[in-house]
Amino acid sequence: MKYGYHEHKDDVLARLRRVEGQVRGLQRMVERDEYCIDILTQVAAASKALQSVAVRLLDEHLRHCVTAAAAPDQEGSQAKVEEATRAIERLLRS
Amino acid sequence: MKYGYHEHKDDVLARLRRVEGQVRGLQRMVERDEYCIDILTQVAAASKALQSVAVRLLDEHLRHCVTAAAAPDQEGSQAKVEEATRAIERLLRS
Amino acid sequence: MKYGYHEHKDDVLARLRRVEGQVRGLQRMVERDEYCIDILTQVAAASKALQSVAVRLLDEHLRHCVTAAAAPDQEGSQAKVEEATRAIERLLRS
Amino acid sequence: MKYGYHEHKDDVLARLRRVEGQVRGLQRMVERDEYCIDILTQVAAASKALQSVAVRLLDEHLRHCVTAAAAPDQEGSQAKVEEATRAIERLLRS
Repeated sequence: MKYGYHEHKDDVLARLRRVEGQVRGLQRMVERDEYCIDILTQVAAASKALQSVAVRLLDEHLRHCVTAAAAPDQEGSQAKVEEATRAIERLLRS
Repeated sequence: MKYGYHEHKDDVLARLRRVEGQVRGLQRMVERDEYCIDILTQVAAASKALQSVAVRLLDEHLRHCVTAAAAPDQEGSQAKVEEATRAIERLLRS
Repeated sequence: MKYGYHEHKDDVLARLRRVEGQVRGLQRMVERDEYCIDILTQVAAASKALQSVAVRLLDEHLRHCVTAAAAPDQEGSQAKVEEATRAIERLLRS
Repeated sequence: MKYGYHEHKDDVLARLRRVEGQVRGLQRMVERDEYCIDILTQVAAASKALQSVAVRLLDEHLRHCVTAAAAPDQEGSQAKVEEATRAIERLLRS
């Protein structure tokens, strides 16, 4: 089965690769004993990039929910919203 | 027109009143020169309570989107998802 | 005893009163059945305002820690940093 | 010069390597078309791990500030607190 983000898989993967690069960059900064505040600034940037991947995935997921709800068999679409809300809650706490 | 949270208006209002009480409690703590870290702990609690109001409203809103999408006239439901995603994004940045 | 935020008490109180006003505004929006996304935008604004009170208090607290550490009796200043870090952690999770 | 996190460099590096592993795991999940909500749960976990690196770095940094302030030459320690507060603010917004 294909999920909502399928069409944008390349974009999501590209973003995740960039986050991976940022996290490797952070390791180099620590290895080179760079200044703590500069490292923290980069942690905030990586964290922001990761959250934007989440927002992208959520957007696709919600579109998919809505499209699925419009189909004859909409069983489970309320459960899907419930699930999405829990995911948003976890992100807000992370 | 009635929006998604209409049925749970009383619950949402009760939560908001509780947050208002927490914020007033914070003012009293500051007036009485209470310890900074204790005040910060209460700020975190009020902030958490406010986020949980947001999650509640989002949940109702998304259910409403999905229900609306299942109706014959689903025009604008993708725009509604877009709008919801932006709202989630603002919450994650707040 | 006077804590770090003492000199800026009026500013902190003014900010908290503004947050209280925002939370009361939210209650009015819900009572008038305003649009969910508009309410969420205001929740994000109130949440941001609350976080900025926290940042203000933390700033004063940390200055106080540093000043106290420079004094002859610096006992407990490491414990104070520990405490501040836990407070920051709670804010990041809220 | 050695910064505050120097003694705990290995711990910070180990945490960052773990986050890198989590981000690579996310890429595999997307490549295998895994379920969006499961991916979001992992994004929240990676984001939490990254924030805990930040908290660790901040803790070391603040200890360092306090220790430096206790030294005869405490010039710039208030500026350091200012800088730390800005870093905390960026993390809260990320």
